[in-house]
Amino acid sequence: MTKSKTNLGNFFEDFKIGQILRHAAPRTVGSGEVAIYTALYLPRFAVQSSKAFAQAIGYQDAPIDDLLVFHLVLGKTVPDVSLNAIANLGYADFKFARPVYPGDTLDATSEVIGLKENSNKETGVVYVRTTGRNQRGETVLEYARWVMVRKRDKGAPVGPEVVPDLPKSVSVADLGKAVPPINVAAYDKALAGSPYFWGDYEKGEKIDHIDGMTVEEAEHQLATRLYQNNSKVHFNQYYEAKGRFGKRIVYGGHVISLARALSFNGLENAFHIAAVNGGRHVNPLFAGGTVFAWSEVLDKTEIPGRQDIGALRLRLVATKDKPCAGFPLTGADGKPDPSVLLDLDYWAVLPR
Amino acid sequence: MTKSKTNLGNFFEDFKIGQILRHAAPRTVGSGEVAIYTALYLPRFAVQSSKAFAQAIGYQDAPIDDLLVFHLVLGKTVPDVSLNAIANLGYADFKFARPVYPGDTLDATSEVIGLKENSNKETGVVYVRTTGRNQRGETVLEYARWVMVRKRDKGAPVGPEVVPDLPKSVSVADLGKAVPPINVAAYDKALAGSPYFWGDYEKGEKIDHIDGMTVEEAEHQLATRLYQNNSKVHFNQYYEAKGRFGKRIVYGGHVISLARALSFNGLENAFHIAAVNGGRHVNPLFAGGTVFAWSEVLDKTEIPGRQDIGALRLRLVATKDKPCAGFPLTGADGKPDPSVLLDLDYWAVLPR
Amino acid sequence: MTKSKTNLGNFFEDFKIGQILRHAAPRTVGSGEVAIYTALYLPRFAVQSSKAFAQAIGYQDAPIDDLLVFHLVLGKTVPDVSLNAIANLGYADFKFARPVYPGDTLDATSEVIGLKENSNKETGVVYVRTTGRNQRGETVLEYARWVMVRKRDKGAPVGPEVVPDLPKSVSVADLGKAVPPINVAAYDKALAGSPYFWGDYEKGEKIDHIDGMTVEEAEHQLATRLYQNNSKVHFNQYYEAKGRFGKRIVYGGHVISLARALSFNGLENAFHIAAVNGGRHVNPLFAGGTVFAWSEVLDKTEIPGRQDIGALRLRLVATKDKPCAGFPLTGADGKPDPSVLLDLDYWAVLPR
Repeated sequence: MTKSKTNLGNFFEDFKIGQILRHAAPRTVGSGEVAIYTALYLPRFAVQSSKAFAQAIGYQDAPIDDLLVFHLVLGKTVPDVSLNAIANLGYADFKFARPVYPGDTLDATSEVIGLKENSNKETGVVYVRTTGRNQRGETVLEYARWVMVRKRDKGAPVGPEVVPDLPKSVSVADLGKAVPPINVAAYDKALAGSPYFWGDYEKGEKIDHIDGMTVEEAEHQLATRLYQNNSKVHFNQYYEAKGRFGKRIVYGGHVISLARALSFNGLENAFHIAAVNGGRHVNPLFAGGTVFAWSEVLDKTEIPGRQDIGALRLRLVATKDKPCAGFPLTGADGKPDPSVLLDLDYWAVLPR
Repeated sequence: MTKSKTNLGNFFEDFKIGQILRHAAPRTVGSGEVAIYTALYLPRFAVQSSKAFAQAIGYQDAPIDDLLVFHLVLGKTVPDVSLNAIANLGYADFKFARPVYPGDTLDATSEVIGLKENSNKETGVVYVRTTGRNQRGETVLEYARWVMVRKRDKGAPVGPEVVPDLPKSVSVADLGKAVPPINVAAYDKALAGSPYFWGDYEKGEKIDHIDGMTVEEAEHQLATRLYQNNSKVHFNQYYEAKGRFGKRIVYGGHVISLARALSFNGLENAFHIAAVNGGRHVNPLFAGGTVFAWSEVLDKTEIPGRQDIGALRLRLVATKDKPCAGFPLTGADGKPDPSVLLDLDYWAVLPR
Repeated sequence: MTKSKTNLGNFFEDFKIGQILRHAAPRTVGSGEVAIYTALYLPRFAVQSSKAFAQAIGYQDAPIDDLLVFHLVLGKTVPDVSLNAIANLGYADFKFARPVYPGDTLDATSEVIGLKENSNKETGVVYVRTTGRNQRGETVLEYARWVMVRKRDKGAPVGPEVVPDLPKSVSVADLGKAVPPINVAAYDKALAGSPYFWGDYEKGEKIDHIDGMTVEEAEHQLATRLYQNNSKVHFNQYYEAKGRFGKRIVYGGHVISLARALSFNGLENAFHIAAVNGGRHVNPLFAGGTVFAWSEVLDKTEIPGRQDIGALRLRLVATKDKPCAGFPLTGADGKPDPSVLLDLDYWAVLPR
């Protein structure tokens, strides 16, 4: 009987195509989560920082930061999807559908959309489509994610291989669904911190975000617990001391949030992450490292039916202990620069 | 005149039987406290995590975590009761009487119910009954606690010895007062994270909660300040460097909250701590330690007049740097296993 | 084009007399900010801690801690005023004009009121008058501040020297504007933690606040990010490792808040900072240091038109790794005691 009630997480052979996982721990998000998020990353985008600013341009309240919504939704999936994962492989078709406001409650479900056993029979790739919803059952965020998960038993039979066909980038028609009609005349550029709107950015433009932020153990642990993400590698020095790196690994999403907050310097009016086309955690981060970031405008598009906002496709690169004036990405040998932590491809929304 | 206004705390000879201590610093509890509590411990019990979930089953809002209520009430008593304590000896007759909701304000009083000078005349045991109340003066929590307190002056006369007769366990009739009638049909087991209700647990069952959490100095300091608990040993490395351990001691309640949050894995529907029968901080914890936990079902009872909920009497054991698959408690020599930090005996409420 | 959109901050030659700087990042302050502030410093003043207490004496809600308001306003000015500062030289005419409540949104503007190039032509002193306002445009806080700022180009021409005439102390008539009429009969001294009101303090009285608080890197980083203060020296160990001290410098305001929270022990009813006459950060603080504090009553005054409250002019001294029973300030050589971090001169309001 002992231990029978404990969740040890799903292993590769436990997943079935079409299976729906209803994740535990619905979560009401309020002023507390917003303030801790601010204390962890120093975001300064005016729309999320100020109820007065948000309401002036058309939101009903200051919306919850997009990445905070993402971290909370992802956190819920960990006990069912990735407790036995050894690698987070990718994201696709990741889009925000509706704003989340203080007082809203988030829950999440995932559908298994792909399964591919690795040739070593010890692991396999699990593809899920995760949907985050509010207390009215409305979708606020959707994304596909794939992770490499251990098998419990190397000999366990598995079903036929299914690899989903995922888009290389989110459709432009799907951008901006989480942004109400914006009263651009009421958008105060001085309060927002920059005169540059969507029309002022050009494809190919690179921006060094200059500042760096050193990460402490207590900080990333607070963050990851805030998201109710119980992945083992972030909190347990007793085990990690004997692990691959000898120390706790910072949650990859912590790096995304740091890089996004640093990117305010140069992208002050890119107030919303509409979608993520893809991204890679190139290297792990550990406490003591200082994170820097730079961005490149990969593309630029109008959004059908929207005169108020436009979208920039941005590459956001985060590095460890390396300032970004030289836009580090690839070394002379063609391999990734060893300082690179994150290479993210996303659509940001700006006023026009 | 200098220093005359400073509170140096009460010494043993300052306490009188029947004395009522009205504690300072009433505190309004809101979304901020709840979110920090989540960021400190990673609790995932659905009732406290989600307003929508709590309201669906009959609460007016998501109640404040029971242990957060306890820590806030205890914190208020420190300047009057235990500033000069050298040991926290025990708890008894500890019961929650009413839910606390965001926006409520807590204050506390204590009555001195026992005094027993030690034979060395340097210390004595002070027994208090503490009551936490909301802004309407309604009791939300009551408990008896006894601590060993220094005398200011070894020669100071003290009154006759009074040792209160405290119950070994809280009466079953007192359980569940803080739980409104629960609509069990609306209690969504998948969202709560487990199919196991009260009826599924058996006396004698042991559960290894598997995960471990490493504690950082900044974390326990943030926690203890959040509770406005100004006990000196948690914050002041300048003094503690010269003290018994050479380092700051983690507030014992921090260990209780970590163990309770870890216990979610295996006790997902044990959403409420109704009462604490007793407990011991077996060893101190210091930053850098990793806390693990296990539980044993000591007893199981229906609650008179309640068809919606039942109670489990649980032993909750926390260890330091020792995983709990072997349920560590007592060594081969009959002495406590040196890894054990906490041995708590409490009543939890689950849906039936 | 690269980097052109990044804010590198203003240099001395960029400032003009009379220039108005509208600072970015308006901020809504709520339960989250209040709770984190509590977790960072352990303030216990009843008015700010309890909505019920505050309402009983005449506030519409528990007001936001004065120093939290200050830190948020100051944080907004950093990108425009002090990103290239090498020293924070002083404050004057610093007064709170209106309470700030949970849900209010703060923004800030600064007017350049003085400019004085240093003889080395590499730096100059910039004087600004900063005004913090709520979402209705009402002033909540005003202060003059002067900082030493680098020149971008040693040879850049600058305008004529202007040094503003700033008062040595805030006018008594300006005290208490942020305090509504107080119902002193409803002010519960036991709940507030002390029987001593304004009339009980004497000029010349010194108070050792006894307790000490050790500061961790994660704590001051969380604090300074909470205030959206992006001054480089607090967060970036990569750069600071090569800097003057080899380590990150704790935001000076963090020391003020620690000292103010410590001062509760002996000044429990000094619930409001009405004004700051001046102050000096005598030495920098680094993580690992333990902060102690003491106060001296420099003066005492009635406030014209107010029978409910009176003001004490207080010197608040914070030290590092030195208990304050001896009220350390000046060494035998007449120089500042090397343990002194802060020497602040402010007006506090107490009930009469």
